Amino acid sequence: MSNDLLLVTNNEKYSAKLKAAFLSRRPEINVLLADDSGAERATMALCWHPGKDLLTRFPNLQCLHSVAAGVDHFGAELLTSGLPICRVVDDHQKQGMLEYVLWGALTVQRNFDKISANQKESKWQGFRQRPASDVRISVLGLGELGQFVARGLAQFGYSVSGWSRSPKNLDGIHCYQGPEGLTEQLKETELLVNLLPLSPATKGILNKDLFNKMPEGGYLINVGRGGHLIPGDLIDAIDSGHLRGALLDVFDQEPLPAKDPLWTTKGVTITPHLASDASLPTIIEQVADNVLSFVSKGELTNQIDLINGY
Amino acid sequence: MSNDLLLVTNNEKYSAKLKAAFLSRRPEINVLLADDSGAERATMALCWHPGKDLLTRFPNLQCLHSVAAGVDHFGAELLTSGLPICRVVDDHQKQGMLEYVLWGALTVQRNFDKISANQKESKWQGFRQRPASDVRISVLGLGELGQFVARGLAQFGYSVSGWSRSPKNLDGIHCYQGPEGLTEQLKETELLVNLLPLSPATKGILNKDLFNKMPEGGYLINVGRGGHLIPGDLIDAIDSGHLRGALLDVFDQEPLPAKDPLWTTKGVTITPHLASDASLPTIIEQVADNVLSFVSKGELTNQIDLINGY
Repeated sequence: MSNDLLLVTNNEKYSAKLKAAFLSRRPEINVLLADDSGAERATMALCWHPGKDLLTRFPNLQCLHSVAAGVDHFGAELLTSGLPICRVVDDHQKQGMLEYVLWGALTVQRNFDKISANQKESKWQGFRQRPASDVRISVLGLGELGQFVARGLAQFGYSVSGWSRSPKNLDGIHCYQGPEGLTEQLKETELLVNLLPLSPATKGILNKDLFNKMPEGGYLINVGRGGHLIPGDLIDAIDSGHLRGALLDVFDQEPLPAKDPLWTTKGVTITPHLASDASLPTIIEQVADNVLSFVSKGELTNQIDLINGY
Repeated sequence: MSNDLLLVTNNEKYSAKLKAAFLSRRPEINVLLADDSGAERATMALCWHPGKDLLTRFPNLQCLHSVAAGVDHFGAELLTSGLPICRVVDDHQKQGMLEYVLWGALTVQRNFDKISANQKESKWQGFRQRPASDVRISVLGLGELGQFVARGLAQFGYSVSGWSRSPKNLDGIHCYQGPEGLTEQLKETELLVNLLPLSPATKGILNKDLFNKMPEGGYLINVGRGGHLIPGDLIDAIDSGHLRGALLDVFDQEPLPAKDPLWTTKGVTITPHLASDASLPTIIEQVADNVLSFVSKGELTNQIDLINGY
């Protein structure tokens, strides 16, 4: 058996960079691009938006591996193909996500968004200092990233609760679950942080109904996926004065088209999908280890739970 | 002996608020405003910008107390009068300062300043994620606030060093001292945080010479006093492309006049002197305790070192 790894992404440059990184760090892995001879014999594929015909083109595949934490880019056909699917789990990525969300939390707590709007009018307006414990933050999604972010925010002094579909226990963090739990939690949420996986059950969850359950002045940070959000509902909620604003990192179409009204909605900060990335060295090490372990023992690490989509 | 406390600030509303807070929290303290009968018999004064004629008006004063951490508002005459001077030391204030500086550090590390400028043009431009440890932060001034901020930033992963006039030892933080130490430190400084006390030795320290010693792309956070900075030198350093920008909370004249060019200098964020305040309850408790201890035993807590001005 050879250590073949098929590499399929929607970006040629990124594929070339990944292939070079395997060659320099883990030369025992035989990375094959789709057009390379012998590509069809690979049993494992490393992917980013591989396209739904992947298994038709490469019928020998027995395992799919994401280059990132998310797996929604495989699409429904591949996610339901019955093949095991793995992803990358990275401390560097967790820390990056915490940094991003903490910046947003500090912005809300210490009013940097309002101060920045005032600066455009050379307006000097004081704001009362309030402690982090006054800010109630709800983290939706308590997977690897969600748990890390919730704990980090709590450690910094914020009042943090978590929500997930199935019951979870986290030290020092009140956890809600299910639709009733979400309704109850939203009532007391000033800052909502979305870190849910994208699945049929969570698509469009950030909508008018949800925003209406939040108190006036609430703020949204979306670091899940663009598909979680109904953008028009968010714009309405902000324009009507119900929500204070939002920090958005992910969008249905990326790059976000220049004409999209989100760019110019007052109180909305747009960032270009950079909240956090798995680092290249971590991707290479974890995927290479999984190739060797799958080839020699049929075992996989960081395999996702396909029933729940994460 | 009675527990008299003369209260002199440059803001009537603030004085009234402080007086009411003493009455509700520590009614045993007899707070006297300047015009109250019996004000002249007070031996201790609680002050914010009291004016240089304070001792001429109230010759019985034996101790001056600041309502805040800083004492520069007393002015040279009172600072050199020979009377002991006390100030407020507050954990709430320390945490508020750390929050403010951390927001600035995250802005630099994760490029939120550049992203925000891009948003004005609906421009989607990615930035490479880099770890906090890549960002070299220098904290000028290692008093109560400076030490707390330096430790908090280091705990969050940043590469932090400190500078003070006299040698200091802080666990895990490299400390520089004196003019040569500053020159050496600035060479490797991406983010400079000023938390020095304002004194004749530090006035105007944030000037052209200092900026020129920093590498290209450096960033300034000034949370000391407006008098530390030569604003024109900062604007020149940013306009020429040498410095990336600045986050400024304090100004020579506050509110900063609407026509001041700092408001519109690209890369400069102006905040209205709100980085951190001692909380009202803490002020009341610490000052009241000092009044009682001074009256009964002649002892004072949180007295400043007048030789070094802090």
